[in-house]
Amino acid sequence: MANSKDVDDQLVLQDFATLSQFGATAGGGVDRQAASVADGQQRRWFSDWLQDRGFRVEFDRVGNQFGLLELVPGAPYVLTGSHLDSQPLGGRYDGAYGVLASAHAAHRVAKRWAESGETPKYNLAVVNWFNEEGCRFKPSMMGSSVYTGKMELEAALSSFDRAGITVRDALNDIECVGSFDGPSAAAYAEIHIEQGRSLENDGITIGLVDSTWAAHKYQLVVHGAQSHTGSTIMADRHDALLGASMLVLAARELADDFASAPLHTSVSQMNIEPNSPVVVAREVGLHLDLRSPNQETLDLADQRLSARFEEIEKRAQVKIEKVTAHSWGVANFHPDGVKLSMNLADSLGLSHREIMTVAGHDSVNMKDVVPTVMLFVPSVDGISHNEGEFTQDSDVCAGVDLLTETLDRLAHGALTDID
Amino acid sequence: MANSKDVDDQLVLQDFATLSQFGATAGGGVDRQAASVADGQQRRWFSDWLQDRGFRVEFDRVGNQFGLLELVPGAPYVLTGSHLDSQPLGGRYDGAYGVLASAHAAHRVAKRWAESGETPKYNLAVVNWFNEEGCRFKPSMMGSSVYTGKMELEAALSSFDRAGITVRDALNDIECVGSFDGPSAAAYAEIHIEQGRSLENDGITIGLVDSTWAAHKYQLVVHGAQSHTGSTIMADRHDALLGASMLVLAARELADDFASAPLHTSVSQMNIEPNSPVVVAREVGLHLDLRSPNQETLDLADQRLSARFEEIEKRAQVKIEKVTAHSWGVANFHPDGVKLSMNLADSLGLSHREIMTVAGHDSVNMKDVVPTVMLFVPSVDGISHNEGEFTQDSDVCAGVDLLTETLDRLAHGALTDID
Repeated sequence: MANSKDVDDQLVLQDFATLSQFGATAGGGVDRQAASVADGQQRRWFSDWLQDRGFRVEFDRVGNQFGLLELVPGAPYVLTGSHLDSQPLGGRYDGAYGVLASAHAAHRVAKRWAESGETPKYNLAVVNWFNEEGCRFKPSMMGSSVYTGKMELEAALSSFDRAGITVRDALNDIECVGSFDGPSAAAYAEIHIEQGRSLENDGITIGLVDSTWAAHKYQLVVHGAQSHTGSTIMADRHDALLGASMLVLAARELADDFASAPLHTSVSQMNIEPNSPVVVAREVGLHLDLRSPNQETLDLADQRLSARFEEIEKRAQVKIEKVTAHSWGVANFHPDGVKLSMNLADSLGLSHREIMTVAGHDSVNMKDVVPTVMLFVPSVDGISHNEGEFTQDSDVCAGVDLLTETLDRLAHGALTDID
Repeated sequence: MANSKDVDDQLVLQDFATLSQFGATAGGGVDRQAASVADGQQRRWFSDWLQDRGFRVEFDRVGNQFGLLELVPGAPYVLTGSHLDSQPLGGRYDGAYGVLASAHAAHRVAKRWAESGETPKYNLAVVNWFNEEGCRFKPSMMGSSVYTGKMELEAALSSFDRAGITVRDALNDIECVGSFDGPSAAAYAEIHIEQGRSLENDGITIGLVDSTWAAHKYQLVVHGAQSHTGSTIMADRHDALLGASMLVLAARELADDFASAPLHTSVSQMNIEPNSPVVVAREVGLHLDLRSPNQETLDLADQRLSARFEEIEKRAQVKIEKVTAHSWGVANFHPDGVKLSMNLADSLGLSHREIMTVAGHDSVNMKDVVPTVMLFVPSVDGISHNEGEFTQDSDVCAGVDLLTETLDRLAHGALTDID
């Protein structure tokens, strides 16, 4: 007979394989954008999974899906979760692993308590945050932003996709919206793949997230003028796409200038008008972001980028407008949370290291309202937002084990009791 | 009482004002993309206009709209026309002026013959070519390409727009498709705004088009790989949008290198996948074109562009694929046609100059099958494919006058009789 650890691992891996079939793509990834048909399907499957194991399922007004285990009537909840939505042609692990790990960890802890007759201090809730990815509806981390009061509910519900469909309508379409207010949280825990290759490179199983990189994000609009691509003499062109292309290169050159800092820069989205092969673009909207673990680097990069606007405006005969500039500084996770999960990893014999997160996560919102633990497991070659995303089964299972112990301790007040 | 010239001018200007209301935009332009609702409306109005003046209206299988005046039973036709479709947020004059000028000119000539009792050698037909612009359905000059046998009917009807709607369905929707084979042509005449500023700069009323610039057009696909815009280290990125942006700059630098040739280069359309703010682009399709009045310049520019692919591929870690390369050389219009219209312009007291056309026109197709006359009138500031496109009323009317005389001579066999 298999031992208990083997059985638990197999259950996780089987469920992960089932979950990966929703919105599965030919390239081995998933396409489950927020409130899409595939997102609705996986949410129904997940509701069934939770209900079958004694969780009460509730949706709040922005489509966050909660599985509640109320063991101590009236007490706050330790929340744990991530997001099931994906990028178009995204990977199977990003978000989905964290939700499933949370569900299994919570279920294991509850079984353990039921067997031992223990009563925790807090209740347990698993959460599938709505629209973490932000690809169909902007902004990203929408569900946790509304839950933590960082975004107005109405603003979230009014956000619309390229086809003009609002979050409100899309959530109604998949029947994943309710009137629940969300559980009162005492602490939060999340696990995610690294989306980088540092853990893998160094053969480390667990990343203990201690802080976030700082980021500056811009929505820029390059204003030019329509003209005929063939007949308009070059000197008369006001080419918005030339200006936008120069911004793409300027961003990359900044990353080169600060390579050792490091600085990550990206432009990955443009909206080109009119986007016709025979009309010089009159307007290009683009998203540009700068990220660094070092606030000074980021501020300096920011200045150097703005300093290049004038040269670009002159060369392409355009105007560059900075529509919104969203930014955040380097922010720390709860140091006692890092210490707690470090000790637990040691007790499980899992190698670990403190790590920063470059990518945003729902935990980045949650850490500002309750003590929060954020864990990473390795991602092979650091491949992310790509169908080829892969994490070894052994790492998948080790993460669930550590999250289980973390939940147990959090539910007993590990980060909330005043020493 | 106003003289006859004043009355004729007013009729042209009134009709032009009426025509400009179809698909009128807030910015003073028009949006009448091929087989759109607005295109259907203007086509019905134009059918009525033609029928009220004794023309028989027919649509061929690709939606070309013909107004036929059969004065000599069984004889071939002198065709004259242009296109009513526009770019999105296009100008009022591009194409529409030529169609309306043709209709008025043909009507005037027919009235003149009716009054004098003259019988011409050929019949007259006004044509509104389908989809000259090529912005909704590719390629451009679709209607005249099918008419002249340069494109298969089936290929044209199967072309589809971004919403997946085919030409076949779109033409059926606006009820502008028939089974007419098109008239047998003896000669063709077209008038258009210059889409450049050379006539205006030099105070010349009429451009006598003697040749076309040569052009090379490419559909390029830059292949990268999806990854996370935040967490992926710069060295691991395969950024298709960076590669595409470098191509945009390379094209512009080529134009600078050959400024005196001259060389016009453009990239004005990109399709970016997945076009998400947090995913490095995996693929960008783009349209790039090079145009020059000098074939050697164009060939040299072409070589230099291709020579830059390797550097771009290396820098952005992408692959560049050349999907289609459509090109044409410098081509002449019928020299006797230039001479004919030059003499007629002189007789009307209109200043004139020989000129090359950079932009494609339906006349560029027609000149390969029948003797063709192509005329330009000035365009203020050379503004084109822009709502601000404008031509002075006096130039509008002078163009109709010259086209009228040209049609009269063509219908009498001016370019087709062997001397």
